[in-house]
Amino acid sequence: MPSQVLTILNQPSADAPAHEPGASPFRFADVASPQLSMLDLGVTRGDGIFESISVGNGRAQAFDHHLSRFAQSAARLDLPTPDLEVWREAILATIDALDDAEESFVKAVLTRGIEGDGRPSGWAFGSHSPDFTRERTEGIRVVLLDRGYRHDIQHTSPWLLAGAKTISYAVNRAVVREAERRGAEDVIFVSSDGIVLEGPTSTLIFRRGNTLATPHVDLGILEGTTQANVFRFAEERGLSTSYEVVTPESLQSADAAWLVSSVRLAVPISALDDKPVGVDSELSAAMNSYLRNLRD
Amino acid sequence: MPSQVLTILNQPSADAPAHEPGASPFRFADVASPQLSMLDLGVTRGDGIFESISVGNGRAQAFDHHLSRFAQSAARLDLPTPDLEVWREAILATIDALDDAEESFVKAVLTRGIEGDGRPSGWAFGSHSPDFTRERTEGIRVVLLDRGYRHDIQHTSPWLLAGAKTISYAVNRAVVREAERRGAEDVIFVSSDGIVLEGPTSTLIFRRGNTLATPHVDLGILEGTTQANVFRFAEERGLSTSYEVVTPESLQSADAAWLVSSVRLAVPISALDDKPVGVDSELSAAMNSYLRNLRD
Repeated sequence: MPSQVLTILNQPSADAPAHEPGASPFRFADVASPQLSMLDLGVTRGDGIFESISVGNGRAQAFDHHLSRFAQSAARLDLPTPDLEVWREAILATIDALDDAEESFVKAVLTRGIEGDGRPSGWAFGSHSPDFTRERTEGIRVVLLDRGYRHDIQHTSPWLLAGAKTISYAVNRAVVREAERRGAEDVIFVSSDGIVLEGPTSTLIFRRGNTLATPHVDLGILEGTTQANVFRFAEERGLSTSYEVVTPESLQSADAAWLVSSVRLAVPISALDDKPVGVDSELSAAMNSYLRNLRD
Repeated sequence: MPSQVLTILNQPSADAPAHEPGASPFRFADVASPQLSMLDLGVTRGDGIFESISVGNGRAQAFDHHLSRFAQSAARLDLPTPDLEVWREAILATIDALDDAEESFVKAVLTRGIEGDGRPSGWAFGSHSPDFTRERTEGIRVVLLDRGYRHDIQHTSPWLLAGAKTISYAVNRAVVREAERRGAEDVIFVSSDGIVLEGPTSTLIFRRGNTLATPHVDLGILEGTTQANVFRFAEERGLSTSYEVVTPESLQSADAAWLVSSVRLAVPISALDDKPVGVDSELSAAMNSYLRNLRD
């Protein structure tokens, strides 16, 4: 069995025609071959959405949460509504077809398809995960970078798609290159009016005493699926949790902080803009053990 | 001969390896077949750039300007430097392979390729242009929408890629849907601090008396190739030209206004946020005739 699997959906949305009427709901495709039209709006305009779902010992984690966020992103982009039952089956089949591994992930992508064609493109790509042991134990250096938007953009200007997980991620990639130029590995975005937001592909969590906190979701940021699980972990452990509006100065004084995401899981922050941050090794290890062993 | 041609480059950048060592610099491909990997960062992350070049009676217009802007966008995204001579040849071959038409266009796309592969993907898609007669003569209704960014973002936060023509255009598409909800066809972006910027795929030009003006390029907007040609047209006609910092209120009092772009050319604005704007039919016709008959 392979370490990578590509599954293409025949009819990603019940609202739109199938690619091959009467064909099976999805088919496995050769990962190494071209499968997408160069005219697909996914690549010509970054016009689509995605979710990355972690797979621990063969089980999709936070699966319902990912699927509902996928549907929410589609709605924000006025995409044809994804047929979540077909997506669920295609993702499960992708996981089944993957060679066993301790950690894998499936990335689901829905694009608007070829302009004027009316049929969205949808696929699930499954792969073994890279080894994130170093990041999870030693932590990573992070810099704060301006996101350019005010903290209230989601309310004033919904057409800016804040809070939707789109494939238009050129900026999310550019900020990581900027971080590397500054000797760091990752980024926390700050709004133009000085509120701490999220990472380009992760959610921020920080600890103050016995409380784990995260930026309030009402700031045009993604509602983190992994953050929700970390909060469940915290509650089981007797820690308090809170959603906060945080400034960079306030974040600097946290006892510990993490960037959490589906595939990399919880990665402690060891430095913020060159200032050392305490790495809570025991809590990091417990958090990652919990996330790796989730049973939805 | 066909009305659409797809040309794939073997080595889009001299800095990066060829896809097939020793193969010819580019090859024609079937427009109707999938030609791109679903793992290409162009589609998974919108990580790439493009240019749309108009072709009038078989001639690429503002060709050098487009190629230099393509290289500038690549630099802003830290992409491997495009080999402009290979791109020039591939685009000219695309034009030659197209069936004759009064107006065509070629869209050039460069993506970072598959993650970790190190070989960028590059292609040129040529097509006959849609008929824009109605838009060019009757004009279009336009709404002003918040771009979310301050006017000085390009200087304070270059990682936001303002002024680079990336394929991460989900927002540029979303604003047009918002315009349609408001009974309009297109958009002019306004900075979060109230400065008029550009259209999602066009440059704004407006007339006051005998002056044609456009927003200053130092506002994180694209340097318009068509706008540059319209200014040349204006100078030949004895009109003054200027680059200005404009507010929405000031724009409302212009004598006429246009959105100009490579393929649609100069389209007069007939209404701005539901307020009628004078359509200068004579000047619009002269402008479009000039743009259609350019000889670089």
